[in-house]
Amino acid sequence: MTVRDPKDIAEPVAPERRNFLKGAAAGGVVAAATAQVAQAVVSPAQAQTPAVQPWWPSRWGPDDQAGASNHITPAKVLEAAKWIRDGKIHPIGRMSESAMPKFGDRAFTLRIPGNPTGGPFGANKLIYNDEFLATEIGQTGTQFDGLAHIGLQVGRDGDTNDMVYYNGIRGAALGGANGVKKLGIENVKPIFTRGHLVDVMAHRGAMMDAGQEVTMADVRGALARQNMNENDVQPGDAVFFHTGWSSLWMRNNERYASGEPGPGLEVARWLIEKQIVVMGGDSWGVECVPNPDRNLAFPVHAELLTKNGIFIHENLQFDSLLADRKYQFVYVFAPVPIKGATGSPGGPIAIT
Amino acid sequence: MTVRDPKDIAEPVAPERRNFLKGAAAGGVVAAATAQVAQAVVSPAQAQTPAVQPWWPSRWGPDDQAGASNHITPAKVLEAAKWIRDGKIHPIGRMSESAMPKFGDRAFTLRIPGNPTGGPFGANKLIYNDEFLATEIGQTGTQFDGLAHIGLQVGRDGDTNDMVYYNGIRGAALGGANGVKKLGIENVKPIFTRGHLVDVMAHRGAMMDAGQEVTMADVRGALARQNMNENDVQPGDAVFFHTGWSSLWMRNNERYASGEPGPGLEVARWLIEKQIVVMGGDSWGVECVPNPDRNLAFPVHAELLTKNGIFIHENLQFDSLLADRKYQFVYVFAPVPIKGATGSPGGPIAIT
Amino acid sequence: MTVRDPKDIAEPVAPERRNFLKGAAAGGVVAAATAQVAQAVVSPAQAQTPAVQPWWPSRWGPDDQAGASNHITPAKVLEAAKWIRDGKIHPIGRMSESAMPKFGDRAFTLRIPGNPTGGPFGANKLIYNDEFLATEIGQTGTQFDGLAHIGLQVGRDGDTNDMVYYNGIRGAALGGANGVKKLGIENVKPIFTRGHLVDVMAHRGAMMDAGQEVTMADVRGALARQNMNENDVQPGDAVFFHTGWSSLWMRNNERYASGEPGPGLEVARWLIEKQIVVMGGDSWGVECVPNPDRNLAFPVHAELLTKNGIFIHENLQFDSLLADRKYQFVYVFAPVPIKGATGSPGGPIAIT
Amino acid sequence: MTVRDPKDIAEPVAPERRNFLKGAAAGGVVAAATAQVAQAVVSPAQAQTPAVQPWWPSRWGPDDQAGASNHITPAKVLEAAKWIRDGKIHPIGRMSESAMPKFGDRAFTLRIPGNPTGGPFGANKLIYNDEFLATEIGQTGTQFDGLAHIGLQVGRDGDTNDMVYYNGIRGAALGGANGVKKLGIENVKPIFTRGHLVDVMAHRGAMMDAGQEVTMADVRGALARQNMNENDVQPGDAVFFHTGWSSLWMRNNERYASGEPGPGLEVARWLIEKQIVVMGGDSWGVECVPNPDRNLAFPVHAELLTKNGIFIHENLQFDSLLADRKYQFVYVFAPVPIKGATGSPGGPIAIT
Repeated sequence: MTVRDPKDIAEPVAPERRNFLKGAAAGGVVAAATAQVAQAVVSPAQAQTPAVQPWWPSRWGPDDQAGASNHITPAKVLEAAKWIRDGKIHPIGRMSESAMPKFGDRAFTLRIPGNPTGGPFGANKLIYNDEFLATEIGQTGTQFDGLAHIGLQVGRDGDTNDMVYYNGIRGAALGGANGVKKLGIENVKPIFTRGHLVDVMAHRGAMMDAGQEVTMADVRGALARQNMNENDVQPGDAVFFHTGWSSLWMRNNERYASGEPGPGLEVARWLIEKQIVVMGGDSWGVECVPNPDRNLAFPVHAELLTKNGIFIHENLQFDSLLADRKYQFVYVFAPVPIKGATGSPGGPIAIT
Repeated sequence: MTVRDPKDIAEPVAPERRNFLKGAAAGGVVAAATAQVAQAVVSPAQAQTPAVQPWWPSRWGPDDQAGASNHITPAKVLEAAKWIRDGKIHPIGRMSESAMPKFGDRAFTLRIPGNPTGGPFGANKLIYNDEFLATEIGQTGTQFDGLAHIGLQVGRDGDTNDMVYYNGIRGAALGGANGVKKLGIENVKPIFTRGHLVDVMAHRGAMMDAGQEVTMADVRGALARQNMNENDVQPGDAVFFHTGWSSLWMRNNERYASGEPGPGLEVARWLIEKQIVVMGGDSWGVECVPNPDRNLAFPVHAELLTKNGIFIHENLQFDSLLADRKYQFVYVFAPVPIKGATGSPGGPIAIT
Repeated sequence: MTVRDPKDIAEPVAPERRNFLKGAAAGGVVAAATAQVAQAVVSPAQAQTPAVQPWWPSRWGPDDQAGASNHITPAKVLEAAKWIRDGKIHPIGRMSESAMPKFGDRAFTLRIPGNPTGGPFGANKLIYNDEFLATEIGQTGTQFDGLAHIGLQVGRDGDTNDMVYYNGIRGAALGGANGVKKLGIENVKPIFTRGHLVDVMAHRGAMMDAGQEVTMADVRGALARQNMNENDVQPGDAVFFHTGWSSLWMRNNERYASGEPGPGLEVARWLIEKQIVVMGGDSWGVECVPNPDRNLAFPVHAELLTKNGIFIHENLQFDSLLADRKYQFVYVFAPVPIKGATGSPGGPIAIT
Repeated sequence: MTVRDPKDIAEPVAPERRNFLKGAAAGGVVAAATAQVAQAVVSPAQAQTPAVQPWWPSRWGPDDQAGASNHITPAKVLEAAKWIRDGKIHPIGRMSESAMPKFGDRAFTLRIPGNPTGGPFGANKLIYNDEFLATEIGQTGTQFDGLAHIGLQVGRDGDTNDMVYYNGIRGAALGGANGVKKLGIENVKPIFTRGHLVDVMAHRGAMMDAGQEVTMADVRGALARQNMNENDVQPGDAVFFHTGWSSLWMRNNERYASGEPGPGLEVARWLIEKQIVVMGGDSWGVECVPNPDRNLAFPVHAELLTKNGIFIHENLQFDSLLADRKYQFVYVFAPVPIKGATGSPGGPIAIT
């Protein structure tokens, strides 16, 4: 996920709301201090999210750190490979560069040391160049959100023991100054699966606007327009949404980052039920921002990543697929296994 | 390529040699100032490398920046896809972390800002983490060398007009403080092709040592042992060498970086003739270092990258493939399209 | 402060000790949840340190963030200036470079983008160079520890509400992913004051070893040898210790970082009583590491910085002063005002 | 110096001009190849700058790398110290932060790893914080330009052998991917000298505008208004200009960076004649940008730094001095000795 300035994006909680939460949170602290971990999450903060029950252990066991990438079995790969039909590779990522929209204070700084970086060496006078990059590597440009990226604060604000991530892992255990100690992107298995593109913009007839929610009616309508239906989506598949928002990329970075159209909780629940592996889209967060419920900050992220281990692939573009009217393909993406990173850059591809 | 300390690796040119080169280089400067570009390369420095002729324009035309990745056509993808037989994905990259062997002064520094980086936000109290990475991103860890990585100095040392890269591109045109302006990794097309693993270590019976050359006899012997032969390698394929050197990774970083076994110019010529797209291996440079001809610095790099646009994938590991005795597979790698980078990190996979 | 690997440096707390602390800490949590902030600090963790009382508000008021730099008044400057007698400037810092000893995972990576970085521009063909540096800027090389650098965890481990810094500021208020929000180095006033160098090595006759404590007997003996005495040290002065440890700098980095000789709690109490502004020295932490009480991690840092707002200047060298047998001088140091940094690099000088 | 986008700032050379230069430059190349180094600089590019003679060796000898900081002798320090009269320290730098105006693609990215970065350690439960900074450290914020920052291309563009810096040092010798190998900021001696502030804005009655030149008439008028005169400026002194441009700092970064008022070549010649050590000012380059001669890019930088070893201190502010009507003071600045850096951050002070 990419948070521009949450204070701008998420409308402030109304004062009376704050008071309610505050009182409730105080009770939560007591619970945290005296009860079992699983009980602690029945806190008021938690109560604001669709599911109030502990979301752990995961379906892949209490030690799992790979989340929905566990769906990618040999059988799944073989099934997906059948969808390679014309052999065309469609890159669906974007080029990473400093001029791209970056959120909040995230930076992307590339430098070439020297010209050249080294040499000439030997009688053959070989020279070489490197590049030095300083960036939030997994959270700038086309990015694949890992499971350490999003969590929920239960109990007292600021207590890392009460920050909870996928599979119930606590902030105190996950946090590390030099890389997350749990749920790092290196735990994700390479993904080779069937992908489905839902062209919501074509269904609606125009680019959606920030804060507009992609609903199940949109999904059904768009799929029907593409001669597809809900049953096409099988466990372990990847689902992508085209809203048109990507047309602002490097054309109007300010508007691009100011919010976005995207799926809300209704579609999130459907994706969870479908047991997909990855949700992707042509915007920076692939969820409706601000959320129709102004009290909630990125609830789709929490539902997918934190509670269900489903990954989110952001800042994609589908130009080539759309030009070819290809809505079903093999999606291939292996995260860069940077130990302790919260996400991954990369060059995702769709093969038709 | 990764250069530890060329002064240590490449034996120094003997003084008399230096003098000869110096005199010759002076002549080269005159040539550069008065003759056509193509003539300039017939310089003494150039004369030390196997090919003295201009290596441009490339077979893909004078404007090409994609090199051998042009081999990856739909037909090639369809042909390769047939080799997906059991659906198993074998990651062949390594995890990137600060403790890995890094060459020369290259750095890899990952930090997690805050714990968490942001939040809690909203009534749902969402929190998030980012990571900040500062590194030679395309030249640390498992790395895919791009065409801006290696060039040759012709003419006068230090004159960027006489530094020449793939397709004849000059250092003065390529160099950019904030990213290379030509031949950046973003020009490489995603690769999905047939891969062949040559287990030289198994053929030889033991890990090879630094400076030992993988010869064509080794290649033929290893292929025969695997019930394969030279004809299996087709244009656009990828070829990988297992020397065992990777067993030193993070076990003896100093020795790992001190040199390496690998292909020499004989095998390089064969790979060029075979028109492969990528050469890869389980060492940091995938060529014999130091070279048997102590005057030459990384000549295989120059032959493949600079003169023929063939990429080099370094610091791989083949544990899973070797355990399964799988020597032929689909190699999938899409470079991270970082604009102006000289190489790419990533998560290369082999699918069997 | 610079922590190499505290697990190596500070001897582990014995198991029975851990249990005691654990039980006590649980009580502390209850206290934290139900009592006033000031009471919360009477926790067992706190009880291990010399002072068990709340150390706030500071003598400069509850809002102060400048600590002992408040001593530097015009009167103090005028008094100090009288000590400029021969006009000689002695640099007492070290050059910052990647080969210097760095602690733990701290990094220092400098790159020059391009050669040159830009140009030529204009008819005059001007060119320019920049440098790109990625480092723990305030905690590598010669470094001046600020008040956000060191705190103490009271209450439950991992609860940022119970991490306490100078003037009672809590971790929850101080922490910021993009810079500390309180006690940043930008709050420190420029320092121009009288400095005293205590040559403990000369007094002892040899370089002290890691873990050896500079005692008050050492201080008195060294001062006497220099024809000085305790009364020379006045409020707002700076005091420096020479142990000889700096002779290992870039000669034996491993040993240098493995521990250090330096002042213990006895000398710390004297310095606090003397109301100095800065303690400095020729080692990385300027305190005895490991501490004679193996249970304590850097207690001198906590006494000076956290409880008394006295700064610590580390990795200094006194070669020029010692060569001239100058032990009293004007110490001039203005921290680089990097907003939200925990320390400062710089070029401290002594003027005689 | 800080170059925003020279293509925007320096008006393009007219086509006919380019042709003239081109022809002339070609001749220069021949000269470079066949003549003595000193002759090479009598190139047309060089001819555009006020001085056409070789500017080396420096007055401090052919090996000097300290430039005008050589003026800071004990006698000079003693003389300057007399100007400490009321003991007040006026910081004249600015706080460094990411929101400050940064030029071109320069970056300033600060992150706090973890919260805290480490701990708790020991029975005293000590915690600590570091900060990680990635930036053009010597060329962002208040910055002190060193002698490797600016040079001139003579001979053929792109030939590092014909890039010339202070004392005749060539780009081929100076350039280093991991830090400049000559003229690094670590060579500069700490500066403690008399400073003079010239309040041109007060003399003119209003903030000057971008491209407006501070002339000698301005200097004389402003000094007279301050009851000072040209003779006050002695060898080794520092001279500062207040134009009012700093009022745009972080209020209108775009305009601030779009150009600036400042001294032109007339004042530069006077400063050189006066043998000052540092010129400083309240703008990003402390020279008139664009220059009245639109063909010239930052000629004052070249005159001072490259040809005369006089340093430039940029992005200063004089609020406290102006409020106190103090125009003469002791200027104290010791560059941060980062090996191989082109400039220095820091906390410059004026003491009155």
